[in-house]
Amino acid sequence: MTSSLQPIQSPSDLRSLPEARLEDVCADVRNAIVETISQTGGHLAAGLGAVELSVALHYVFDTPRDRLIWDVGHQGYPHKMLTGRREQFSSIGQKEGMGKFLRRHESSFDVFGAGHAGTSISAATGVAEAIARRGGDEHTVAVIGDGALTAGMAYEGLNNAGFLKLSNLVVVLNDNQMSISRNVGALTGFLARRWSAPLTQRLKHGVTTFLESVPYVGEDLVEIARRAEQALKAFVSPAMLFEGLGFNYIGPINGHNIQELVETLTNVRDMEHNEHPILVHCYTKKGYGYEPSQADPIKYHGVSKFEVSSGSMEKSSGGPPSWTSAFAGGLIDLAGEDERIVGITAAMAGGTGLDKFQEAFPGRFYDAGIAEQHAVTFAAGMATEGLKPVCAIYSTFLQRGFDQIVHDVCVQELDVTFAIDRAGLVGADGATHQGFYDLGYLRMLPGTIVMSPKDENELRQMLKTAIDYPGPAAVRYPRGNALGVPIDPEIKPLPIGEAELILDGDDVAIVALGHLVSEARDAAERLRADGISAALLNARFVKPLDTRRLSELAGRCRAMVVVEEHSIQAGLGDTVAAALAGLGQSLPLKLLGIPDQRVEHGSAGQWRAEFGLDAAGIESAARELLDGGSPASAGE
Amino acid sequence: MTSSLQPIQSPSDLRSLPEARLEDVCADVRNAIVETISQTGGHLAAGLGAVELSVALHYVFDTPRDRLIWDVGHQGYPHKMLTGRREQFSSIGQKEGMGKFLRRHESSFDVFGAGHAGTSISAATGVAEAIARRGGDEHTVAVIGDGALTAGMAYEGLNNAGFLKLSNLVVVLNDNQMSISRNVGALTGFLARRWSAPLTQRLKHGVTTFLESVPYVGEDLVEIARRAEQALKAFVSPAMLFEGLGFNYIGPINGHNIQELVETLTNVRDMEHNEHPILVHCYTKKGYGYEPSQADPIKYHGVSKFEVSSGSMEKSSGGPPSWTSAFAGGLIDLAGEDERIVGITAAMAGGTGLDKFQEAFPGRFYDAGIAEQHAVTFAAGMATEGLKPVCAIYSTFLQRGFDQIVHDVCVQELDVTFAIDRAGLVGADGATHQGFYDLGYLRMLPGTIVMSPKDENELRQMLKTAIDYPGPAAVRYPRGNALGVPIDPEIKPLPIGEAELILDGDDVAIVALGHLVSEARDAAERLRADGISAALLNARFVKPLDTRRLSELAGRCRAMVVVEEHSIQAGLGDTVAAALAGLGQSLPLKLLGIPDQRVEHGSAGQWRAEFGLDAAGIESAARELLDGGSPASAGE
Repeated sequence: MTSSLQPIQSPSDLRSLPEARLEDVCADVRNAIVETISQTGGHLAAGLGAVELSVALHYVFDTPRDRLIWDVGHQGYPHKMLTGRREQFSSIGQKEGMGKFLRRHESSFDVFGAGHAGTSISAATGVAEAIARRGGDEHTVAVIGDGALTAGMAYEGLNNAGFLKLSNLVVVLNDNQMSISRNVGALTGFLARRWSAPLTQRLKHGVTTFLESVPYVGEDLVEIARRAEQALKAFVSPAMLFEGLGFNYIGPINGHNIQELVETLTNVRDMEHNEHPILVHCYTKKGYGYEPSQADPIKYHGVSKFEVSSGSMEKSSGGPPSWTSAFAGGLIDLAGEDERIVGITAAMAGGTGLDKFQEAFPGRFYDAGIAEQHAVTFAAGMATEGLKPVCAIYSTFLQRGFDQIVHDVCVQELDVTFAIDRAGLVGADGATHQGFYDLGYLRMLPGTIVMSPKDENELRQMLKTAIDYPGPAAVRYPRGNALGVPIDPEIKPLPIGEAELILDGDDVAIVALGHLVSEARDAAERLRADGISAALLNARFVKPLDTRRLSELAGRCRAMVVVEEHSIQAGLGDTVAAALAGLGQSLPLKLLGIPDQRVEHGSAGQWRAEFGLDAAGIESAARELLDGGSPASAGE
Repeated sequence: MTSSLQPIQSPSDLRSLPEARLEDVCADVRNAIVETISQTGGHLAAGLGAVELSVALHYVFDTPRDRLIWDVGHQGYPHKMLTGRREQFSSIGQKEGMGKFLRRHESSFDVFGAGHAGTSISAATGVAEAIARRGGDEHTVAVIGDGALTAGMAYEGLNNAGFLKLSNLVVVLNDNQMSISRNVGALTGFLARRWSAPLTQRLKHGVTTFLESVPYVGEDLVEIARRAEQALKAFVSPAMLFEGLGFNYIGPINGHNIQELVETLTNVRDMEHNEHPILVHCYTKKGYGYEPSQADPIKYHGVSKFEVSSGSMEKSSGGPPSWTSAFAGGLIDLAGEDERIVGITAAMAGGTGLDKFQEAFPGRFYDAGIAEQHAVTFAAGMATEGLKPVCAIYSTFLQRGFDQIVHDVCVQELDVTFAIDRAGLVGADGATHQGFYDLGYLRMLPGTIVMSPKDENELRQMLKTAIDYPGPAAVRYPRGNALGVPIDPEIKPLPIGEAELILDGDDVAIVALGHLVSEARDAAERLRADGISAALLNARFVKPLDTRRLSELAGRCRAMVVVEEHSIQAGLGDTVAAALAGLGQSLPLKLLGIPDQRVEHGSAGQWRAEFGLDAAGIESAARELLDGGSPASAGE
């Protein structure tokens, strides 16, 4: 099927081929993706849906001279295959290996990094404007998925690109028909081909000509024709949006027909853009070309290792339930007792476990789409009516709703709970997805309480605490498996602002937050086994901080280690240092956290070890302090 | 002109009047706004443009049972007049007085607070959904300006409201024709009236009927009619957007014709919504009905005291230049020497001083609209092409771009400068506009440098430092007048991470940031006059922190006071405490900053005094520490 084709190592290889060979290239790339991802796991369905599009874009445009900017990056695997990274796929998501998303640090073909959705149009607008400023003739092409178009910033980007009249900008909408409403028919396909052909670039003329062929409409009916021109576009419902924002809309076209893609993109590349950026609307099928993923693209969005012939995936190794499922179970239990509880997410129903909540309480579940800003303020609006909204959003994505947390929740003192999944190290997803900032950006805000649980039973207690608290409250917990501890039959709230003294001691106090309590416990046990009286405090609350217990420990111990999976700046460590200083208490203090650097992909365990956030690192920090070795400065 | 009408004290007063009296009410409200704002200063033009709309909404809808949610709040003055706050206008913006924006804490008619733009649709969607859930029959009405529609979250809100099919939701677009492109004519006004009338609710039938009256189009041309129906809507260009997002679009109507407003809103209130929320598009004129502001609505957007007859405003009292103008001057000087510098803002050209930059370098200025997310990523895109973008955005509004700062600037290590105006206390604008969080949310991020200048000359130096630095850099400075210090002829960058020791001493070290250095200097002088050897360190950099100088001072002095106009949590104080603790240094330490509370309007000076951030407060904190009085705990 791939015949004697040599694998493409670069877009210039690709461009040396006759167009007739491109289908073979697509087959080869698709096979290679299926083969490699079946061995490594990773994102599958989005990339398979973008194979033809990737090949056509690199074939038609002179990348990297022409700037190609992808959105999110799930769909970037074929692009990576075509741009010299085929051999690196086996290392995907591993420390020092190839990343799962687009990364400027990885390739000159990755013009702009991506991990969050909806950024490509804004970035490409900046790139295209910079090129236009200096009179450059390079094209800029942004690719965005239909799901990402629900993000407000994508709309802001379209609006601004249209305003700037960037005729060197092309936005390709990779529409796998999972989000936007539309009503399309044969007419629209016909129009798309006509509009993108050079001979009919003069749109008004072209449409008028078309209309003259319609029975009963005479050629002198200019007014009707003008209206009908709009009408024809209006039939292509997504066009309404894009034309309204100043784009020339072309499409929809079949994103799996390489010939149609190459023809359309070539026309787009060569046409006079007439002071409008162009939007090319491609329909694709997520998971296309590999039977199992085409049949169930959601299941094959992100995969573990699988058998190519059957598509059957490796079962997860068992083990304790995930933090996510512990949250979902807790929320379902609490919602069964309190009708005011509703669950809100932003295109993360599966990832946050709210899909389970939705099954249990379908009428009390809301998915805002990739629209965290709206999700937060929507929750705030519900809270004004006495509901108890719980927003379940990943730490990294909740950053999108920061202003709304300030302005619509905290300033208004509304009762919204934030269940923050994927807090801390995220593993293979890497730098764009790390959840290192939530403690800082939440504890600054007036009236908030901010918690992190040591285990899944405590997660349930904290969820109850947050929902009971009549103001903004947050619970943050990491990706991955929880501890497998027994679950209390009844969910009791925790006393607000009380830490838990797990081990008492008077040599060194280890103050740990969240899932790192278990690492800290191991460290404390090792120290105690060695005759060092190590205390262990489960901080529980970053805010309000349990200054009383901290003060007691500081008074009793010779040294203190504070450990959190958060930026070393502005998190638990800083607030503990400030609290003790404010109390006039002093002892050798070591703060452990994420240093001031970009943290790439790699397993959470590897990074924890590197940053001294595991049991060995905590133990060693404690020993250093006790030995009087001068600790490294906090904050690196 | 207002005849014998009694001033309206509540919407129920209003609703007891015959419709014929509403014009008198409008005249009275308009006069009262002009009269009171001429005495107090405040927002004028937006409110004047919304008088008829406010009267009609309260007349037609049963507020506060029906929920009326305003956006931003500039336009809320007539609403406040009509809802029992007429007598409070003289206290507008003053401490303990009436706020300038909408506030839940102020009135049950203020269903949702507002200060930032673009939130009303999301909030109203939450409210309407909560009401629909419990089967309530209350209406929810959101009002949004056309400018605010450039905010991505407004689009997210529309998209979700349409998806939820909220038939109890009405969005009123108060379009004062300052932002959205449109092409309207007599036809659209005609259609608007027809569509909102109960007799012609069946849209398709109505339009078909209309078309049958058009010459040459026979009644059997159903297909053409269907297309033309869309065409007619397409002529109303904003309709394309809203219908695409699932709304029934009605309008545009004349927002100053009280009869048309009442008729349309009554129809909207009573119509069967057919599972679609409704958008009512009103055209208004900003500043309407008061000659000077109607002629120049931008000048009269926010006003100082003025003479009603002439419109002439009090001149500002002179004094030193504002921080804003110092920034603008510095940027213009630097841009004159470096062509790579471009200026970007988000609908704050005048407020940030970038209007001056635009005059000097029209081709290097970008206004993204109310779209901070896009503005930041647009800047990042430009940076990838070697430009030196400077984003000038208020502290409170930059919160909207937080995720983009993380994901598109810091993770990608791009060279973007943030010039953060209105950092710290903002005075009369109050709780929604306070700039208390920028230090925290910026210093956490990898690779950033974060500065604040003691005076306007240092602001220029920091701007140069930030632009020279090849990564993300921020300079934050407050609202109001700078110090009037001499300006160096040449702008030299500062050594990164070096604080400035202004006064040396060995009793107490005062570490101050930004504009509070001058308060701290006064405090230090008073202490020194009293024989106390007070050192004064101008921190300059919150990150990287000058730990060397801090350590020296901590080693030399008996106590330290850290003062910043930022949340007491996660700012300079915390990082100083953590740094000293990390170095094993200890001394009595008092952190001064904004406590964990909502801070309402009132002059910055008043709040500074209340929070101990003025010279007296700093002096007293220093004395307490030296006297060994136990300082209050940091973080209150």
